[in-house]
Amino acid sequence: MDVKNSRWFIEYFNPYEAHMRGVKNYLVSEKTPYQTMDIIESYSFGKCLILDGKTQSTEIDEYIYHDCLVHPAMMSHPDPKRVLIIGGGEGATLREVLKHKNVKEALMIDIDKKVVDLSKKHLPEWHQNCFSDRRCKLLYMDGRKYLERTKDKFDVIIIDISEPVNEGPAYLLFTQEFYSIVKKKLSRDGVIALQAGSTSCREWFCYASIYATLNKVFPVVQMYQSYIPSFDVPWGFAMATLGRDPKKLSPAEVDGKLKKSVKGGTRFYDGETHQGLFILSKDLRKALREQGRVIRDREPIYTEI
Amino acid sequence: MDVKNSRWFIEYFNPYEAHMRGVKNYLVSEKTPYQTMDIIESYSFGKCLILDGKTQSTEIDEYIYHDCLVHPAMMSHPDPKRVLIIGGGEGATLREVLKHKNVKEALMIDIDKKVVDLSKKHLPEWHQNCFSDRRCKLLYMDGRKYLERTKDKFDVIIIDISEPVNEGPAYLLFTQEFYSIVKKKLSRDGVIALQAGSTSCREWFCYASIYATLNKVFPVVQMYQSYIPSFDVPWGFAMATLGRDPKKLSPAEVDGKLKKSVKGGTRFYDGETHQGLFILSKDLRKALREQGRVIRDREPIYTEI
Amino acid sequence: MDVKNSRWFIEYFNPYEAHMRGVKNYLVSEKTPYQTMDIIESYSFGKCLILDGKTQSTEIDEYIYHDCLVHPAMMSHPDPKRVLIIGGGEGATLREVLKHKNVKEALMIDIDKKVVDLSKKHLPEWHQNCFSDRRCKLLYMDGRKYLERTKDKFDVIIIDISEPVNEGPAYLLFTQEFYSIVKKKLSRDGVIALQAGSTSCREWFCYASIYATLNKVFPVVQMYQSYIPSFDVPWGFAMATLGRDPKKLSPAEVDGKLKKSVKGGTRFYDGETHQGLFILSKDLRKALREQGRVIRDREPIYTEI
Amino acid sequence: MDVKNSRWFIEYFNPYEAHMRGVKNYLVSEKTPYQTMDIIESYSFGKCLILDGKTQSTEIDEYIYHDCLVHPAMMSHPDPKRVLIIGGGEGATLREVLKHKNVKEALMIDIDKKVVDLSKKHLPEWHQNCFSDRRCKLLYMDGRKYLERTKDKFDVIIIDISEPVNEGPAYLLFTQEFYSIVKKKLSRDGVIALQAGSTSCREWFCYASIYATLNKVFPVVQMYQSYIPSFDVPWGFAMATLGRDPKKLSPAEVDGKLKKSVKGGTRFYDGETHQGLFILSKDLRKALREQGRVIRDREPIYTEI
Repeated sequence: MDVKNSRWFIEYFNPYEAHMRGVKNYLVSEKTPYQTMDIIESYSFGKCLILDGKTQSTEIDEYIYHDCLVHPAMMSHPDPKRVLIIGGGEGATLREVLKHKNVKEALMIDIDKKVVDLSKKHLPEWHQNCFSDRRCKLLYMDGRKYLERTKDKFDVIIIDISEPVNEGPAYLLFTQEFYSIVKKKLSRDGVIALQAGSTSCREWFCYASIYATLNKVFPVVQMYQSYIPSFDVPWGFAMATLGRDPKKLSPAEVDGKLKKSVKGGTRFYDGETHQGLFILSKDLRKALREQGRVIRDREPIYTEI
Repeated sequence: MDVKNSRWFIEYFNPYEAHMRGVKNYLVSEKTPYQTMDIIESYSFGKCLILDGKTQSTEIDEYIYHDCLVHPAMMSHPDPKRVLIIGGGEGATLREVLKHKNVKEALMIDIDKKVVDLSKKHLPEWHQNCFSDRRCKLLYMDGRKYLERTKDKFDVIIIDISEPVNEGPAYLLFTQEFYSIVKKKLSRDGVIALQAGSTSCREWFCYASIYATLNKVFPVVQMYQSYIPSFDVPWGFAMATLGRDPKKLSPAEVDGKLKKSVKGGTRFYDGETHQGLFILSKDLRKALREQGRVIRDREPIYTEI
Repeated sequence: MDVKNSRWFIEYFNPYEAHMRGVKNYLVSEKTPYQTMDIIESYSFGKCLILDGKTQSTEIDEYIYHDCLVHPAMMSHPDPKRVLIIGGGEGATLREVLKHKNVKEALMIDIDKKVVDLSKKHLPEWHQNCFSDRRCKLLYMDGRKYLERTKDKFDVIIIDISEPVNEGPAYLLFTQEFYSIVKKKLSRDGVIALQAGSTSCREWFCYASIYATLNKVFPVVQMYQSYIPSFDVPWGFAMATLGRDPKKLSPAEVDGKLKKSVKGGTRFYDGETHQGLFILSKDLRKALREQGRVIRDREPIYTEI
Repeated sequence: MDVKNSRWFIEYFNPYEAHMRGVKNYLVSEKTPYQTMDIIESYSFGKCLILDGKTQSTEIDEYIYHDCLVHPAMMSHPDPKRVLIIGGGEGATLREVLKHKNVKEALMIDIDKKVVDLSKKHLPEWHQNCFSDRRCKLLYMDGRKYLERTKDKFDVIIIDISEPVNEGPAYLLFTQEFYSIVKKKLSRDGVIALQAGSTSCREWFCYASIYATLNKVFPVVQMYQSYIPSFDVPWGFAMATLGRDPKKLSPAEVDGKLKKSVKGGTRFYDGETHQGLFILSKDLRKALREQGRVIRDREPIYTEI
């Protein structure tokens, strides 16, 4: 292996496992009021957005993550007019939401204005100017506080936040209390989707706990996953609804809706993909049943070891 | 991250991407006539078998790889009595094959006696003494040469070899010529399964080429995949049959057969898992259609960059 | 750079500086009652002895370290008959001491019998069977306790211990109290030598503190240094005597003594080398004057960050 | 070791030895017509200038390198009025030369204007505005070509170029032919100094070859060295003169001259340091006598493995 590069980004998953990524250029390196933010230009994944030392998404494969987070939820609602995004600073979640013609209003609430501002400037491949769509509204504040105070209701709520890390901005957005607040802000047929961390075989506790916690609050919960190349692991997602089961959507229904209501198409997601996302292997289904515990404000969960 | 360890195994995927794995102990480090062989004891994955610097399987997650390679093929044959394994030195493929009560004879042919001998000694968690099952027969020779000469036919042929690397032992076992030989040695209803390399989004050319090549030879070809944690990537597999479509097996059929004919059960694989394995995402299906080329003895393919 | 190796030893000097060393083979990896002990076979330095994750000496360059630690002290005593070595488990300090024909008795006291035993077995290039020299006596106990209790006196005392690390076996052997005990066990014309840590420009505090501490106890103290390739840094040593100044030995005197009294010769050390060892650069001399503090049992010093 | 950093600069010395340096920020990363140029801000060494992947000098320890390269040569000339610097892009060699009050003219010739321009902008700690000293003259061209054509003569010529790497800009400035040209451009009492690569024990061939080559051309050659912390190794230098022996300067002479003729003083270098620089250990002196070969234009030497 002819290693010529001398610039590396090393991401430690735990004290014994790390990924080395060759860096062409460092584009951004800032401390925001809430986290550190890096944008690197890598050889294999193009630009990479990194928060608190953890890769969030990359130019090459962000379409997988954002397709998974947004479309299954949007498909599972009969007419998603009002959508709330909590987090999602780089703008790609918003971009995918706005592809849906039904959407009249997309409100995005990110706690970290600096992340959004730097993404606007440096990550046009992500947001593709969707911030200037007239249906979009942007607020900079704590998503949980917003939900506690607002009287608005939403058809779809997408929670696109970083992992629950001790003292990080997100750990109180994974609790039973938080999900109970979210539920109250859903309109009839309401759907939520969220990223739920790694589903690699050594790391099921957190995923199973999110499952257990959502089950305390919502009548229907479906866990799903997809491999994200730049993360090195399959990534877990969760959907919860007030009644409909997203797993029961047929490939044909999904493909029909995609054709009819989604402008610009999708690269990763379609009817067949939808089906595959929700099929979990035997060992993971067992872990979901057995390994988790309910996450509460007083007993939060952290992914960092 | 409190990094106390100073022993590392670093696997370069390409000159710009590498994985660092903390090592507790080095158990084996040998040059065989065909390759280098390492067995390390890692913190996160237990024992790891490494050939030519590439992780082949680990104590923690080998069950995923071997379930995927063996059971879908065995399920797709109505009565798999005679099974041929090409490669499979660590013995876990054989172990899974022998779980099937139908099997009367399992012939394993590995070119590298030293790999088998060292696996027998150091990897009991893998082979679980299956080498001493009276249905098992072991030959040390080139699998292709064996097939060219033998008059035997097999119900299921499982090709469990390392990646096609220049001057490596395996690159002539991925060609149209080789698959044509394999086909001739299948009995009626015959099925083959093989590992087919990474399906991570930057690396579809090889996977698509194996698909294109199998399609030149077999009437039915189905590609499938599963994430293997210790590889950092989802791993591609392929099945080809003389007629039956493995994708059409229903979860109930699979679960029924598992219960009836498989001793000891499976940890990763079951009816629902079977279904999920064969569902590929939209982008990968597109890559399979568009990116590959037929691999021939004179135009082989290498995964090494 | 064609990087083929996948086995690495990574030594962190601090959280931002580390050295990666390619490993051919891991020979020993043990936990002793006092420390962890590794012996690796590296590509560039041959065998390497590593205690608590820190390289102690290597096959290729241990002659530099041991020449520096032993011969300047032995040369500075008019007739070194009785020599005490504290530490020195791998046996190379003893080997160099025994080259001196004057020596009638060399007592080596190491707290860690396991380090000595494994060195005897795996590091013959270091000890060269000197343990079986009839002048050598070996004790396994705490060096400080031995000195507190013994009534013996020594001509030369060599302190060859690992760095002062919190909870490590050595940190109480760098204090004023300890040096006061040592001093009492010196015969007339007595000399001590010790390793005193890195003298690289970012790390002078510890070296200057050893200097300050020795100056509290001994009438003559001379600091010296030599680069040790496998350490990546120049290594500091210290000598203290009851009266003679080792820096005043002329090259001719040293060369004469070497010829007359040292069997087997030296590879690194001679009269000219002796002179160079004691010449410190302007900035380091300034640091020695200004940066240290006296190390006491109640205010020990640690090199670990 | 609490490793929080994820940005690393990894410098491979050979395929089995590398240094990892934690990076705070990447300041410059350019391809010039002759080489790649990086400026990083590191945690342990402040700003670092890196050419073709190799650390050239750092904010924390550049004073050592530049003191060593400049002052011994300047001290060895009775009245250094005209000084030529070949290379020295970052400006610190020039800075040290201009401290000498005797100097009437300092001509610096660097092949790479971009390196000089970016250094002017980003490395003020190095050049300290010395480029605007009215005694300084700057030319951008090949140093060898300049010397071949010029009719000027110089009292001191300082060769501050990168290592001889295949296809790098410097490998023809280490040959007998080049030194013969240099010699012709020296005035009476002329002195040259040059950096001559690592003197770590595994790497003496190149250093010994420079010694052998200079000896073919100059009547007096003295090799010297100093450890440079950011290089991890002691660095070799060489001086050659038309008659005077720099090793014979007494500490008192050096200190007297420093006081009288050097404005601003020195941090590393003084009379005692001068003496120490020229004292080489026994093994290195042996290597200089035995290991080198004459470097010629047709038989150049490369440090890269």
